[in-house]
Amino acid sequence: MAKKGILLVISGFSGAGKGTIVNRLIEKYDEYALSISMTSRAPRPGDVEGVNYFFVSREEFEKTIAENGLLEYAQYCGNYYGTPRAFVEKKLSEGRNVILEIEIQGATNIKKAFPESLLIFVTPPSAEELERRLRSRGTETEEAIRGRLARAHEESVGMDTYDFIVINDDLEKCVDEVHGIIETSRKQPVRMQDFIEDMKKQLDVYR
Amino acid sequence: MAKKGILLVISGFSGAGKGTIVNRLIEKYDEYALSISMTSRAPRPGDVEGVNYFFVSREEFEKTIAENGLLEYAQYCGNYYGTPRAFVEKKLSEGRNVILEIEIQGATNIKKAFPESLLIFVTPPSAEELERRLRSRGTETEEAIRGRLARAHEESVGMDTYDFIVINDDLEKCVDEVHGIIETSRKQPVRMQDFIEDMKKQLDVYR
Repeated sequence: MAKKGILLVISGFSGAGKGTIVNRLIEKYDEYALSISMTSRAPRPGDVEGVNYFFVSREEFEKTIAENGLLEYAQYCGNYYGTPRAFVEKKLSEGRNVILEIEIQGATNIKKAFPESLLIFVTPPSAEELERRLRSRGTETEEAIRGRLARAHEESVGMDTYDFIVINDDLEKCVDEVHGIIETSRKQPVRMQDFIEDMKKQLDVYR
Repeated sequence: MAKKGILLVISGFSGAGKGTIVNRLIEKYDEYALSISMTSRAPRPGDVEGVNYFFVSREEFEKTIAENGLLEYAQYCGNYYGTPRAFVEKKLSEGRNVILEIEIQGATNIKKAFPESLLIFVTPPSAEELERRLRSRGTETEEAIRGRLARAHEESVGMDTYDFIVINDDLEKCVDEVHGIIETSRKQPVRMQDFIEDMKKQLDVYR
């Protein structure tokens, strides 16, 4: 029986370093693949089709929903965002762990539909450090930074709903911790259902 | 803030090698301590007070219950068995992970009383291997072996209620896996409540 991949959802505060962790994870270990979201929003300057998103029209997006072609989807500011199902299922069956970098509402929807998915929340070691990182980017207005911090406050309420929380203090350490979580999580009953069922069946003869 | 110890419950099929794993874990890593159960059953030849059990009278046991001196207790075959509270709490506060080797009913009671406890179930790789190990002891009657296998069938139904399941195929590998689970489980929200509360409080100013 081939090792099946794990559906890995990574969320976290804006400024926590999710993107960097995900990129390094894929670079460092062979067994990960990144899911690319589909969106109906218009591409912005710098956006690359098939790298940042798959860009489609609202009509195409709604057709994909109707065909059950998305694992989850949501609307923000009048645009659709979703996770195409086919790519994820193909990679999982090949034994790859598929990473979705999505926010809490999407994460909750994924967990409901796939209880064996694994939800990881990434956070800096403190709110002070979060603010420092956001400011050090030097690219955003004070208002935008305050907005991100206010949003972080909202998100902090949902931390408890994740399977694991990882503190991003040192990138390499953090990447290895995430990888270690994946390995260890294979020993959780929800991901050992085949073994458990098999064992129960075998032991049934001794009843 | 000192690292607090984890209350670790280890259960598993008779013949799975729990005792060997626990002994090796304590030998190999400094941070573990074994909880010794209290019982009202009479010592058997070879039993050592304070090593196998703390042996007390029924009266003393019931007094300890009344004084809330036990984390959990149960009766089997007319005898009491329980986990003395004071020893466990002292070791946890010193940062030691305290191991309870108890069966499923006790494990469930511990989890109810201490949601942050960690329940690990140890199993051989197959029922065939379980039977082979039980027979290779060469010390038990056919009836006793059948009894243990029938009990294993009953216990297999409860595997899902554990936090992690460890397959004991190779002792050293298994011991390191258990230790890895402990480390990783420190990143589960139930064991990060102090960090989460602190983060929420810090972020509250940005609301």
